[in-house]
Order: sequence, then C-alpha cells, then structure tokens
Amino acid sequence: MPASPIRRLVPLADKAKERGVRVYHLNIGQPDIPTPKVALDAMKGWNGKVVEYTNSAGNLSYRKKLAAYYRGVGADVDESNILITTGGSEAITFAFMATLNPGDEIITPEPFYANYISFATICGVTIKTVPSYIENDFALPPVSEFEKMITPRTKGVVIVNPGNPTGYLYSREELEQVADIVKRHDLFLYTDEVYREFCYDGLTHFSAARLEGLDEHVIMVDSVSKRYSECGARVGALVSRNKEVLGAVTRFCMARLSPPALGQIIAEASLDAPASYFEEVHREYVERRDFMVDALNRIPGVSCPRPRGAFYAVVKLPVGDADDFARWLLEEFEDGGETVMVAPASGFYSTPGRGKDEVRVAYVLKIPELKRAMEILAKALATYPGRTI
Amino acid sequence: MPASPIRRLVPLADKAKERGVRVYHLNIGQPDIPTPKVALDAMKGWNGKVVEYTNSAGNLSYRKKLAAYYRGVGADVDESNILITTGGSEAITFAFMATLNPGDEIITPEPFYANYISFATICGVTIKTVPSYIENDFALPPVSEFEKMITPRTKGVVIVNPGNPTGYLYSREELEQVADIVKRHDLFLYTDEVYREFCYDGLTHFSAARLEGLDEHVIMVDSVSKRYSECGARVGALVSRNKEVLGAVTRFCMARLSPPALGQIIAEASLDAPASYFEEVHREYVERRDFMVDALNRIPGVSCPRPRGAFYAVVKLPVGDADDFARWLLEEFEDGGETVMVAPASGFYSTPGRGKDEVRVAYVLKIPELKRAMEILAKALATYPGRTI
Repeated sequence: MPASPIRRLVPLADKAKERGVRVYHLNIGQPDIPTPKVALDAMKGWNGKVVEYTNSAGNLSYRKKLAAYYRGVGADVDESNILITTGGSEAITFAFMATLNPGDEIITPEPFYANYISFATICGVTIKTVPSYIENDFALPPVSEFEKMITPRTKGVVIVNPGNPTGYLYSREELEQVADIVKRHDLFLYTDEVYREFCYDGLTHFSAARLEGLDEHVIMVDSVSKRYSECGARVGALVSRNKEVLGAVTRFCMARLSPPALGQIIAEASLDAPASYFEEVHREYVERRDFMVDALNRIPGVSCPRPRGAFYAVVKLPVGDADDFARWLLEEFEDGGETVMVAPASGFYSTPGRGKDEVRVAYVLKIPELKRAMEILAKALATYPGRTI
Repeated sequence: MPASPIRRLVPLADKAKERGVRVYHLNIGQPDIPTPKVALDAMKGWNGKVVEYTNSAGNLSYRKKLAAYYRGVGADVDESNILITTGGSEAITFAFMATLNPGDEIITPEPFYANYISFATICGVTIKTVPSYIENDFALPPVSEFEKMITPRTKGVVIVNPGNPTGYLYSREELEQVADIVKRHDLFLYTDEVYREFCYDGLTHFSAARLEGLDEHVIMVDSVSKRYSECGARVGALVSRNKEVLGAVTRFCMARLSPPALGQIIAEASLDAPASYFEEVHREYVERRDFMVDALNRIPGVSCPRPRGAFYAVVKLPVGDADDFARWLLEEFEDGGETVMVAPASGFYSTPGRGKDEVRVAYVLKIPELKRAMEILAKALATYPGRTI
C-alpha cells in the first residue's frame, strides 16, 4: 500500500502546530460549509432506542428517496439499482472487487484521485493513465490516447466528474467519446460523481448514468460527504443497472453487515435541504474560486486554470520540486507565525516526473482566510530557495 | 464471494412477512437491549455545525478513553496501539490485508463466525479448521490438532472469544495453549473479543492481549456493536503492540479516509455507561439463556449446551438437514400465523457435512417472545416431515 499523498505531510503540519505556527489547510477536501440544518435536526430528533444494523443494502426509505433524486438528474434508476455504502471509498472498492481480478487493468486520465491507487492495490489491479495537461485545463485526452492503452487485460475506464484534483467538468460530448470506447471494447465505466452538485458558471452536470446503451457498463459511485458537507457520516452509494454487478456487490455488502445507521439518518434528511442551501454553497464556492484563482495567477511564475467544478484546482508553481516546497512550507517557512499546507500534485500522477512543479489546492476556507493563505503563499514563493524563476 | 449463511434466508423471511406471517428472529445477532442513554444523549447534544472527517485512526479523545478501558481489562496499551475502524468487520479485513498474502493460511476452531470466510476470500487467504464438538460444549480442540494443520503457508490462528456461533468462553489455560503454538511457529494470533463483556456464571474474560511474550503476535479485533447494542454505529477497533502491523493498517485506514464520526460520538460516550447498565444486561441475558437452553433441551431429540458467553448457542436438532428445516419454517410452516427463523449451522462449518443437524440461535428476544418462539419451534419439530426421530 502506498502512503496517501494527501495525508503524508500531516505529521509535519502537526509539528508546525506544536511549535505554535498556524497552518492554513489548502491541502484537504474537508469543506467548512455547514451540514444542512434539516440533517442535524433529523439526528437530534431521532427517537429510536437501539442503534441497530440497517439492511446491508441500506435503508429502503433512503434508497427510494435517493432514486428519486437520481431520476431528477436524468438517471433512469429505482431503489433496486442502488446499494448504500460506507462512503464513496467503499463503493469504489466494492465496484473494483466485484468486477476485476488481480492483474486486470483500468484506464483513467491523469492526474487522478490518489486514493484510487490504494483501492486498485487492494484488488491487485493496475491503473494505466492517459495524460491530461494543465496547459489545456485538463480536458479529456483524445480517444486515440485511450485506445493506445487498451490491452486484453483492460476491463474498465474510470472518470471522476467533476475531477479531483483538477476540478475539470467533463462535457456531454466528452462523455460520449468515453462511451464510444467503453462500448467498442466492452469495458466497465466507473463514474465517480461525488462532486456532481458543484458545477459553476451556468454549466450543468451530465451524469454518465444518462449515456445511451450503457446499462451493463456504467457503475456510478457517489457520496454525501462533499455534497452536504458531511464527510464524517460515511455514506456513499453504488448505482448500476447491471444486475450481475449489483448481485456481486450485494455479497460484499452482506459481509460487512451494514452501512452506518446514523450517517444514513442525516443523509436521508439531507435530501430535503432547500434549494437555497445549494444556491448559497455555489455562491460561496464561486466567490472563493474566483478570488483564489485570480490571486494565484497574480503571483509571478504561478499559473492556475479556472476549474468549472468541485472545489479543487491544480496549480503550476515556479519551483523545481513541489514535494520539497510543501515540506519546506511546514518545516522552515513562516510569516508572522503562520504558514500554508498544500498537497503536492505528484501524488496524483502515476507517471514518474509528471506534476513535479504542481500542487493541488482546495478552496475550502472562507475568503478572509483564503486571502491570508494567498498572501503567505506569495511571500513563501518569493523567498523559497528552490524557486526556478 | 460466498453468500452470507446468516442472511441468505432473508428473502424467504421477507416473503413470509408479506403473507402476513409473524417471524421470530432467532437467526441474527441484533440485540434488542437499549443503547446506553448516555450515548444517545451525546448524539442529541452534539453541537457541531459540520459532520467532518475524523482522524483516519479515529478521534484521539476516543482512542485515549478506549485505551483506559483496555487497561482496565488488563491489556497494557495506550492510544498509539489503537486504530478505530468501521465496525469489527473492517478491523478483521484490515488485519488480514496487512499481514497476509494471497495463498496464506490461517487456522481456527470450527464452527466459526461465517463472515470470516468472506474476509479471507477478499484477501485470497485459506481458512483451515480444527474441529470442536457440541458433545464437548465446543471446548478448544487439542493443541495436537492445530499442529497437524500447520504448513509453511500458515500465518496465524483466529480465536473468537467468547465464540460466535458457539457462545463458548475460552479459559486462560486454553488461551495459553494457543499462545504456545503461536510462539513456537511464529504466527499471528487474531483475537476477536467483541463479546468480551458477555460472560456469565461468575466467569471473567481473559483477554489474549494479556498473554505474555506475544507483543508482536497478538492483533485484537473489537467492536462496540454488541457491547453497547449499537450495531448501526459501525465502530470497531484494531489493537496491537506490533508497530509494523499498526503502520500497515494505518495505510488502509488512510485510504478509506475516516471511520464514522457520528458512531464515534456515541461509542466514546458509551464508555461512561454506568456499571448498572451491564449488570442489567447480564441479568437479562442469563435469564434468557437459561430459559432458552432449558426449553430447547426439553424438546424431544434436541440438545443444546449452556454457553458461558455471548448470546448465541448452537443447537442439535432431530432433523436430517437443518438448511431444509430452516427453509421449511419460513416457507411452509406456521402456528397461529407465526413462525421462527434460525441460522443453519452448516454455514459456520467449512468441513462438508459437519453441522448438518445444527442451527445457531441468538437469545436476543425478550422472555415472552422467546417463550413463544420455543413453543413454535417445538410444534414445528413435532410436525416436520424431515425429522429423524
């Protein structure tokens, strides 16, 4: 198992805090947005006496309500297509375990969500990547690049939409290109849509579950963690119209007995969050994104695309090695007793050498804090001994 | 993945209920005992605004308090020896993943907790068994039987104490025999102690974490599910003094990000449950056990040992095939619109043919319901066409 690239700097941040240094966390995907009030009220108002196992597929009432939500975004599913999981992480792991054998290969655009390496490792599966480029805003690589990577062991394609770490929002046309490859080579399409509700600039999300003729291919992975700012609930879902896949995943669900009962209470209630909840969240994230991207691009030598989704951006820095820079920020730098923590992008690439001068930043801080974090970053880059320009 | 032997009859029970038949569930380990009030109060009184990820090892405050609890039962550990998991299931899976390679073997007395087969299957590991016998109350098989099963691929021994499905409580002397094998062959000892607090007749539990000279060998698996009747919290723990094992498991913990945050709130508060909580629970379970075991042994042809721990018993029935009988109870039998559901014991044996005339029953119903369930079972056995005496 590789160490998590997002968490491996955590001990250094802890040490900085022990020295009394304040650390602005741009490195993690833990939103500061409040969990919907209706969700917390449901938890506090719960009047059961025993916190029992739920059905291993999840509570039926939740699955029905969630199916209605998916139909609302255009996916033709009912509760029989949904298995509730312990976070999106378990949904991914079960999807891989149920469909892949050791030695099999899956293809995904690079950079990609680093924990996929862990999930693949658990299953003995190899991730092969097709490069996407910061200069091109991390758009979908040409279909020909995917075709090049296909071997007899290739079993599927993974698309995270909107992307983590890139924040890139795939268009319907791009997804249809993926659909074409998936159909022609009879592959699974694992579609991770946990950031579905975070699309900006008037763009809307097109779910891969809406792609035509892919009933047997598409396995959607979802989670309430980011959507309702309830990462600790540990509630996700696996959604598919492939009955054989659902049957195989059900066995894994039974083995671990039950997804979290309390998490499901708040997840189900969250579906009643008013439209104003997301409007507020969108306004906040767009404001933060614009502030952050503008501030970053004003720093000499820094470039950052303006992502259309999620709440991450990959940033190119004028440094030789972003891993060293991220370490230096925590171990050696401070400005008025404060520093920032970023996630080196190298952990999101599997091709050696790629992403060496990039970091992922998450705009999960309020504007005043984000402003201070950008100031600190600019000062740090101005004095960093390893900078390249 | 094999289908769960405990859950594979669930669709038949659902159908019976659809026909309007009331089903008494003796088949599952879902206690009806109330979750401690102090735990539910903690959940309702929680005043956070965001349900955040916790540390992937679990909340530090919980780990410290849990370490104090373990020291109270004689295990020399602190918070650095504890990783909080998503239920005991995840602790077992991570323990296996971190220490075993595909093709490795582990040994356990048979019958054994059926889900271990699933966890082993996920890791490509083979479970080899040494037989224990209902005639002998399922006591620890002789050490010589374990030795016979050891091969160069053997990496560990699994002991569930008190046992599921048997309710057998291993003595200190029995555990010291296991320790001897483990030491001599340099094996891991996976000790599943989730029923630790359920010991009766004045007997006390001896934790394998107290065994001398096994710091590098013992991996304890624990859970709050049964202890505090909060199965839905999905909070367990992996406890070890082997730093290498803890390091490897930590990586799996990081990959799945966080154990359930809400579950940890109630699990931590549960440690403050008053002594009267367990006194009440013990009184209730002993009363139920004695009632059930006596009632079972009065039925012609039935024999049931009196287990000293947990809340299960394995029962020998005068039937040729307990799987067929369990099915028949749900599909064909009823008494005044009511029937019972039992777990065929064959699913807890891996040796073909063993346990064919045994079922597991859980005494998780209140006495009046248990009384009615025993009546139904007696009537059913009297009319069952497949009975052998």
